[in-house]
Formats: sequence, C-alpha cells, structure tokens
Amino acid sequence: MAEAARRRGRPRAGAAADRRTAILRAASAEFAEAGYDGATMRAIAARADVDPALLHHYFGTKADLFAAAVDVPLRPDIEIPRLLAGPREGLGERVVRYVVETWDDPHFRRRGVALLRTAVGNRAGSGLLVGFLSRELLTRVAEAIGGEDARLRASLAASQIVGLVVARYAVRIEPLASASVDEVVALAGPTIQRYLVGDPPPSGP
Amino acid sequence: MAEAARRRGRPRAGAAADRRTAILRAASAEFAEAGYDGATMRAIAARADVDPALLHHYFGTKADLFAAAVDVPLRPDIEIPRLLAGPREGLGERVVRYVVETWDDPHFRRRGVALLRTAVGNRAGSGLLVGFLSRELLTRVAEAIGGEDARLRASLAASQIVGLVVARYAVRIEPLASASVDEVVALAGPTIQRYLVGDPPPSGP
Repeated sequence: MAEAARRRGRPRAGAAADRRTAILRAASAEFAEAGYDGATMRAIAARADVDPALLHHYFGTKADLFAAAVDVPLRPDIEIPRLLAGPREGLGERVVRYVVETWDDPHFRRRGVALLRTAVGNRAGSGLLVGFLSRELLTRVAEAIGGEDARLRASLAASQIVGLVVARYAVRIEPLASASVDEVVALAGPTIQRYLVGDPPPSGP
Repeated sequence: MAEAARRRGRPRAGAAADRRTAILRAASAEFAEAGYDGATMRAIAARADVDPALLHHYFGTKADLFAAAVDVPLRPDIEIPRLLAGPREGLGERVVRYVVETWDDPHFRRRGVALLRTAVGNRAGSGLLVGFLSRELLTRVAEAIGGEDARLRASLAASQIVGLVVARYAVRIEPLASASVDEVVALAGPTIQRYLVGDPPPSGP
C-alpha cells in the first residue's frame, strides 16, 4: 500500500524527515554553488526533487532555509526590526547586548564560530555569508536608518560586530573574551550607536 | 675543502640562504607547536641546528622572526610607538589611516588576508596570531594609554581593527570594501579614538 501511495505521488507517512534532509542537502549545495542571492527556492526544490511549496511549508523564507542549512539560528528578518523598533537613543546598546547574549549561549557559539571559520577561512564561504548578510541584514538596517551614507554606516557597524565576534569568540583576545556583557555593551554600544544614528548629543558624565 | 670547513662547523660561503630557509622553517614549526609566547629563540635555533646568535643576526627580534615566518611585514614594535607618539587628539584617525593604507597595498593585502584566513579559519592558527598580537601589540598600547581598563579598551580597539580588516579585505562587505581611505578614517577613526582615549569633549559641528 505504501508503494501504491508513493507511485501516486502522495507523501509516505514517516518520510517527512527524509524530505527535510533532502531539502537541506540540496539547499547547502545550491547556496554553495550559486551564492545566497543566486540560489532560488525553485532551484533548491528541483535539486531535492520536491515541490517548491514544501520548502516554504517546512522552512519558511529563503533566509530561514539558509539558517537551517548552515545550522545557525540566524533570524535577521525578525531580530533587526525588533532591535530597530525601540527608542533610537538605546539602539547601539541593544544591538551589542543582543549580539553578545546570543553568542554567549554555548550552543549558538559553537555553531556560529564554525560558520565564521568557514566564512573567513575560505573565499567561497565568504561570498555565501556576505550575500546573506548584505541581503537580509545590511539592506534592512540601511533602510531603517536612512541618509545618504546609510549603507556605508551599516557596513561599518557590521564590521564592529564581526570584529567583536571574531575577537571574543573565535580567536579569544583577552580581556575582551572574558569581559562581562555589561562591560562590552558599555564600550561597544556607543560605537554602534554612532555608526547607525550619528554622534550623540554632548552630555555630562 | 668545503667538506673540511663544514666538518669544523664553519659556515660555507653561499650557505646563508639555506640557513635562512632552515631558520624560517624551524620558526614556523616551533611557533605552531609552542605558540608565540612559548616559542623561544633558543628552541628555534636548536631545531634549525644553528647558533641562536644567527637568528638575531638574520632576523632581529622574535617579533621580526615571526613576521618573516608568516611572511607578513608586521612591525608593531616600530609602528605602535610611532602611532602613539603624535598628538592624542588625532590618534584614532592615525591608527585607522595607517591600517587602511597598509592593507590597501596589494602585496600586503594578499599576505595579510592569507594570514587572517589561517588565523580565523582554524583554532591552532588563532592561538598563534593572538599570542603575537597580545604580546607585541595590546601590551604596548595598553601601557601607553594607561588607566584601569586599558587592556580591555585596547582589545576593543583591536576588535574594530580586526572587523574592519575582515569586512573590507577578507569577506569584502560593500560599500565598505570600496570606500575611500578618507571615508573609512572619518567613520572608524572616532571609534578607535573613543576606545583608546575616551569620549571626546563636546564640540560644535
């Protein structure tokens, strides 16, 4: 009976895990070959030999599928709007606190450092992660902050976040690697604030 | 006759290049095994089967030998004091301009990116470069700027420099990768200034 159902193209019970795995494998291959922007949900579906609707059903957007394929819970589509939604004066500190608290979590850190090593360690990996970050993160941030040099400011903020993550989690420069969340937020928060929002108004100590 | 000279332990004429190569190979192996702090000039000399004095004669300090072994002209022992020597108010901009102008040079960039990929791409590489930077760079900078959290501030400045270099040269995030030196200095200079010297006094536009 299972055989008959399969021949009629209906999903077998219990085959969902197989299909998920096939989709993830196809997504990894397609992202690696075509880059983040070049990879389409349609091409990934064709590679996995499933209906494109299944990709959306299991994984959501292309950004979600990418996060699942690299096995790092990156959700800029949700997190960026959330971080940008609060009051402007605390934006830099919120961003740094979010990044540090996320990466301080051992599970995220393990996966994140592995992704970072791949991305920085070889040219192909670079292109893929940068494509993802440009499309899903820099564009969102630049649109939100506005102004002529918004994208340059957003990419400078990204450079400080990348540097913070590399220094604290990947290569572990001390005492930054062991500093408390509050210490890092107090020092790096104003940097992100300045890049994204401009110089703060002068204030007393 | 050459044979006799060798047996008496005297260097052959024309053997300098061979000895240089042997020392560099021994240095690479010793740095990789023992880390930057753990590697000694004596151990490297023993590995290369030469007198320790020869290492100093050919390469100078341990920092110089490291730079030669990784084939990147890193000279923090010279550059850091030079950058710190000028007026305090322009320190951040001087540091960023020096970094960007150095890495914009194609020869340095090629070697620097290769070293960066090794350092971030795998754990062993990380330890070695971080050992070098901690000893030769952070310590010098922290001593020069002073204050209770000098080392933390110096490591934050290093994180922005690392992030700038990764974003502009290794993974090439646009528009940061194509921005002019002056644009990068104007945006990132005040960040380094704040980390190293503290918040600037309020000033009009």
